Amino acid sequence: MTTADLIIYNAAQLITCAADDGPKRGAAMQDLGLIADGAVAIRGQEILAVGTGAQIRAAYTAREQIDAGGRVVCPGFVDPHTHVVYAGDRAHEFEMRIAGATYLEILAAGGGILSTMQAVRQAPLEHLVAESRRRLDTMLALGTTTVEVKTGYGLSTEAELKMLHAIEELDRTHPCDLVPTFLAAHTTPPEYGDDADAYVDLVIREMLPRALDWYAHSVFASGRPFFIDVFCEDHAFDVEQSHRVLAAGKDAGMGVKIHSDQFNSLGGTAVAVELGATSIDHLDAIAAEDIARVAASQAVAVPLPAANFNLGQTNFAPARGLIDAGAALALATDINPGSAPCPSLPLVMAIACRYQRLLPSEALNAVTINAAHAVGMGHRLGSLQPGKQADLLILDMPDYRHLTYQFGANPVWRVIKSGRVVV
Amino acid sequence: MTTADLIIYNAAQLITCAADDGPKRGAAMQDLGLIADGAVAIRGQEILAVGTGAQIRAAYTAREQIDAGGRVVCPGFVDPHTHVVYAGDRAHEFEMRIAGATYLEILAAGGGILSTMQAVRQAPLEHLVAESRRRLDTMLALGTTTVEVKTGYGLSTEAELKMLHAIEELDRTHPCDLVPTFLAAHTTPPEYGDDADAYVDLVIREMLPRALDWYAHSVFASGRPFFIDVFCEDHAFDVEQSHRVLAAGKDAGMGVKIHSDQFNSLGGTAVAVELGATSIDHLDAIAAEDIARVAASQAVAVPLPAANFNLGQTNFAPARGLIDAGAALALATDINPGSAPCPSLPLVMAIACRYQRLLPSEALNAVTINAAHAVGMGHRLGSLQPGKQADLLILDMPDYRHLTYQFGANPVWRVIKSGRVVV
Repeated sequence: MTTADLIIYNAAQLITCAADDGPKRGAAMQDLGLIADGAVAIRGQEILAVGTGAQIRAAYTAREQIDAGGRVVCPGFVDPHTHVVYAGDRAHEFEMRIAGATYLEILAAGGGILSTMQAVRQAPLEHLVAESRRRLDTMLALGTTTVEVKTGYGLSTEAELKMLHAIEELDRTHPCDLVPTFLAAHTTPPEYGDDADAYVDLVIREMLPRALDWYAHSVFASGRPFFIDVFCEDHAFDVEQSHRVLAAGKDAGMGVKIHSDQFNSLGGTAVAVELGATSIDHLDAIAAEDIARVAASQAVAVPLPAANFNLGQTNFAPARGLIDAGAALALATDINPGSAPCPSLPLVMAIACRYQRLLPSEALNAVTINAAHAVGMGHRLGSLQPGKQADLLILDMPDYRHLTYQFGANPVWRVIKSGRVVV
Repeated sequence: MTTADLIIYNAAQLITCAADDGPKRGAAMQDLGLIADGAVAIRGQEILAVGTGAQIRAAYTAREQIDAGGRVVCPGFVDPHTHVVYAGDRAHEFEMRIAGATYLEILAAGGGILSTMQAVRQAPLEHLVAESRRRLDTMLALGTTTVEVKTGYGLSTEAELKMLHAIEELDRTHPCDLVPTFLAAHTTPPEYGDDADAYVDLVIREMLPRALDWYAHSVFASGRPFFIDVFCEDHAFDVEQSHRVLAAGKDAGMGVKIHSDQFNSLGGTAVAVELGATSIDHLDAIAAEDIARVAASQAVAVPLPAANFNLGQTNFAPARGLIDAGAALALATDINPGSAPCPSLPLVMAIACRYQRLLPSEALNAVTINAAHAVGMGHRLGSLQPGKQADLLILDMPDYRHLTYQFGANPVWRVIKSGRVVV
């Protein structure tokens, strides 16, 4: 009899999402590693064992036990693409857009990404942290236990570093684990007019070294990766500029991510594959040959359907086609104040099932094991396997399919983060 | 100084949705009756006064006071079209549909409305009540304080009456107020094959008198209306059958509702207008001349966009066109186990803003004052005005536009029902 710290038992379905090497791709995305009448034994922050209730009872004891009451137990959700650190809001812009205002009219009224840049530049660090913490609280209650977070609203050396410090402070003080991504190349700030090349020079020569220095002395340096990212799109950065930014980050040892093919297919996806990207995100306008390219690569494809929904679009990234081509696919909220003011991975899954024809099983792997791989943490997170971090959810439902079948409410009954009940 | 029982103060925005006669229609749907720095005085179950904090402080005292903390206060939401009383679920059918199963394949696998009919017929009353109560709990937490509920899964005299008794039991024991609607003409049960006329005879000659007798002795007879409803659609009931059902209900003193133009425009909308319908629901395929007809009538138009979303549709009812034509419009969840497993009016509003171009103000009037009129309760519910029932919400946001700008989480901080804090 082995002594554990916590046993969770009586799970009608224990969804392990177990995978031994890399993310699930293609048809394997339907495999949830489901154990009926399941149980989990936890010691400290880690999973000791998973199995049927009978198996766990026979081998483990623990002082603390949680009766899941016939509910579903699954890994904590990983949100692999967010802009959750920001200040201010853009509710007025949302209303203007519905009323028919054009992009230029919204800009003239002080809207758009530059309005968020101004708010972030002006916000003291504590203010930025406090506003973002409230959003993380909401996300945690909705089942998200790990959150990738991008910079990219500072757009100056000082303000981008402030965002990195905010990410570090939130990781230190919030139950969620954060994974930092440096996205100074989000858009060219007004100081540089339309000289994106000059801004890219600044990003690479001044900002990136400072960001790497921050990382080296941060809590993330031991065991959490640091990503470089760029927005490759018309009116943002072209393929050559994107390549320069990503290559500079890669040369410095960072993981590679990209915003690619959101509105136009410029070639960023091929660049990212060539650089060995960890994830390639958006992909609404991905070309057929790039679907094959992504499927044949190690990169995880990350569509962001809440952004399409938020813009009232009826087209969505070809997530079904990507999976059918053999790609590994993850889903993310893209939470941000402009195109996706949405903290809910359950709603993102619900949209993906309906508008991108993901099966309930595929959607669940897309926010657990595959999302963990999309942030370079697949070895520690995203599945319920011995030795992995004990991040798990008890969902208030008798069958995992209800997670996507029902929509609009919070399906999460309890959140366990690193072995501790936090919700 | 007048003594109240409860004062709610420090609302950054008090949204009254005040209207003096009938629902808001056309451009008036943008008027929220907003009071900055607002407060409400409540005595017993009713609103005594609304005004600015200074006005209320100067005239009222109360032992119990709630500091809204700069949040938004608005009327409790009214959900004017639901099938929330049911048994079982259809998660398997949801998965089959995504995988590409046809309607006939789903029927062959035991899916569709008849599977819910079987589950309802078999469920003991207590079971039906218990399952439905959990859904009402979720809806209440999401801000819904009044719920219209339809029968229509029993499809036999006995089972339809069981549904009515379930509605009464839930109204008696749950904080939500319920408004009953008799929808025996939801579909023709298998006992009648394709002889819809014979089933309509049963509905009118046997079931309706029993339902009216139930109502006369129910808690609803004093102060709550009773509606007749029919599903006018190909493979359901044609225009003549629909007219027979609705006219029989109207002759017996019931309010008139209809499911019309969901997939095909058969003429049910004109029939409903002619019969003085209280609401006309779905309207996805409404003809241009019927838009004008509805706009010129007293009926409230009730699109149900969660059903379109659930089916992954990219077309939605022309809500914008209806408002622009001068119609009064309300929104509802349509919560049901097949086409809309969605308890959330905030999400329905978010869909309507994005895919039907409703302004945040219009969406809010659509789930308060107009929804109250859509269930014949506009004189008692749906706005914060002296003498009305004290059903109100404190929303965790500084501006009402956040209710639709943000989506996917629960925006409700507190629910006050009949003067009492229930969430």
